[in-house]
Amino acid sequence: MLDWDKEDLLKNVRERHPLVECLTNNVTVNDVANVILACGASPVMATDPRELEDFIGLAQAVDLNIGTMAPELDLSFEKSLAVAQKLGKPVVLDPVGAGAAKCRTEMLLRLLDTYPVAVIRGNASEIRALSGEAGKTMGVDASAGDAVTQETLPARTAMAAGLARKHGCVVAMSGAWDILTDGERSLVCRRGVPQMSQITGTGCMLTGLTAAFVGANPDRILEAAAAATEMMCLCGEIAWERTQKLQGGLGTLRVQLIDALSLA
Amino acid sequence: MLDWDKEDLLKNVRERHPLVECLTNNVTVNDVANVILACGASPVMATDPRELEDFIGLAQAVDLNIGTMAPELDLSFEKSLAVAQKLGKPVVLDPVGAGAAKCRTEMLLRLLDTYPVAVIRGNASEIRALSGEAGKTMGVDASAGDAVTQETLPARTAMAAGLARKHGCVVAMSGAWDILTDGERSLVCRRGVPQMSQITGTGCMLTGLTAAFVGANPDRILEAAAAATEMMCLCGEIAWERTQKLQGGLGTLRVQLIDALSLA
Amino acid sequence: MLDWDKEDLLKNVRERHPLVECLTNNVTVNDVANVILACGASPVMATDPRELEDFIGLAQAVDLNIGTMAPELDLSFEKSLAVAQKLGKPVVLDPVGAGAAKCRTEMLLRLLDTYPVAVIRGNASEIRALSGEAGKTMGVDASAGDAVTQETLPARTAMAAGLARKHGCVVAMSGAWDILTDGERSLVCRRGVPQMSQITGTGCMLTGLTAAFVGANPDRILEAAAAATEMMCLCGEIAWERTQKLQGGLGTLRVQLIDALSLA
Repeated sequence: MLDWDKEDLLKNVRERHPLVECLTNNVTVNDVANVILACGASPVMATDPRELEDFIGLAQAVDLNIGTMAPELDLSFEKSLAVAQKLGKPVVLDPVGAGAAKCRTEMLLRLLDTYPVAVIRGNASEIRALSGEAGKTMGVDASAGDAVTQETLPARTAMAAGLARKHGCVVAMSGAWDILTDGERSLVCRRGVPQMSQITGTGCMLTGLTAAFVGANPDRILEAAAAATEMMCLCGEIAWERTQKLQGGLGTLRVQLIDALSLA
Repeated sequence: MLDWDKEDLLKNVRERHPLVECLTNNVTVNDVANVILACGASPVMATDPRELEDFIGLAQAVDLNIGTMAPELDLSFEKSLAVAQKLGKPVVLDPVGAGAAKCRTEMLLRLLDTYPVAVIRGNASEIRALSGEAGKTMGVDASAGDAVTQETLPARTAMAAGLARKHGCVVAMSGAWDILTDGERSLVCRRGVPQMSQITGTGCMLTGLTAAFVGANPDRILEAAAAATEMMCLCGEIAWERTQKLQGGLGTLRVQLIDALSLA
Repeated sequence: MLDWDKEDLLKNVRERHPLVECLTNNVTVNDVANVILACGASPVMATDPRELEDFIGLAQAVDLNIGTMAPELDLSFEKSLAVAQKLGKPVVLDPVGAGAAKCRTEMLLRLLDTYPVAVIRGNASEIRALSGEAGKTMGVDASAGDAVTQETLPARTAMAAGLARKHGCVVAMSGAWDILTDGERSLVCRRGVPQMSQITGTGCMLTGLTAAFVGANPDRILEAAAAATEMMCLCGEIAWERTQKLQGGLGTLRVQLIDALSLA
């Protein structure tokens, strides 16, 4: 069980409806915008370097997801971090594909050494790659060898906590078991259903949801990230249950997930 | 009540199935294509400057939506307007984020001073920004202070009509109440449901739908734009009613909206 | 009837879950990723030239879909073919809009003359444009004059087979009747429903599905492509039947299509 009252944190999202400026990938950008709306926040998905300062200035949080790499986006990624630092806005970083492509890992390590972030939200393979531990990532999904189980929980938690301490941020490591840690305190969430990993973008959606919670609860980052994770997991359970009742498949699951988030 | 026969205009879309060349944003590009298909038209979503002349040459209307700004798209936006002018194709412009980011407002004002458009379709904050009236826009959604109510209707209509006269085009200003005007005649549509603003892209979808109606009814631009607006509002009502019956949320609403448009 | 056992080929997708590296368009990229997941494979949608070698190295097949042209993507398209050739990975090419825009046709003809591909998967107008036959393409959808009927079947098959022999690949030509050929053997699939062409991206989805089947069955390319085509057609039939039972429209059809693919 998580030691906080998630209702309170969600209520803040719904009452303050924070604006979340998202630099996210073109695969799941529509889903991320809809998830941010579903939880009661407002999305802006601007990536042009010429307008980042305007939109980050209006926003309560920044979602930086490097899912779509492109030479012409390098400046946008860097500038969003620089502007957020200057304006004191919290950044939730999704290190998509860290460990799978060398240019991703290198860019992320350099950015993390240069700019502060509030939360790193990634899967176990990505968090491992940023931690400098050995291993192999096979794509943008977590490798089976990185799964968190009862047996590996202590080591995985220590790895995430080490990364959190190194960068002075919260690490939200997603998987069948989610680990959330600020380096001192660590929480585990064992909810959710495996079917969520069979629709694209649930990780990106969770990053957007985390940014919404962080934007509405800026003084409780760990709790906000944990609330977002638990909300996503619980809504995934509800969505899968309804999908089964409807005898549906992955198309229905995706619709039910947005439904559950908006009705929560 | 609107003083035209919308069935007639929709029939033209379904019989002539115009090709709509869309330069739109990567957040809602899939929804826009599906809405254009749902109403009976055909979408092409090309943005490469090297092929704009080919596709605009084939098309009956151009949907220019600046939702995704990027330095490498500047030329595409400008060229689409220049080619459309040369070939005499009507352009429906969606000034996403006008007023929220300086570079958007400036680019739009410059383009509108240089090229003709058939319709400007935006929310009240965007129309205000293009009209040069003072105010504050907080993102890509309309600000609460810009809402059209019984009290503000005359002033808002005058503002939209002034912009229409200035650029010799139709202005379609969306919101709880939609105002459509060519500077001389003004129509108001009070239909639709507020839930439509809680799914991303309903504004972009309406712009695509407007382009389809304009492409099929090029000699009745104001009526075409009003028909598109009313169709979107009525389908939104139907979609929300069905969503409630299904005890669904925003995921279901989005599916029902496309359903309603295709079954209308 | 097709002369192979599709269950066997689908089983290979589900057991080997190949990684499919996709360079696809921003209109349907989310649908393609979800279709690849639905059939049991894994998608990566990377287009950055700096990481193509890493991801293609991990992948079992490459989906190259030129739906979104952009000057900054030229290098990515070319490099994906060069890397796939070097690493011996099969490429499924979707020549979106060939014949409709000159720059597309020219680029495709040049790439096909320079690099090998395993499968060309396009509609009849696109295949015609690559074959050098005269005709007119009106957008990204097949022209009515290119439809395959009982009468035109022999000529259309000969055209597709000629293209297959020229490039030493399989040609999968989609439409109301699908023709699949390696230049020697030709198969016809007469399944599917016309409503599938009224939702955007069914062609792109089929290309992704084909890449998944090819990646899992690299020694049986023609059979793999035919299995993907038949699976898409049968799932389209199931989806349309369920959509009608639900009294739904095109929004429901899209959800049901992903459902049918994931439940097949």
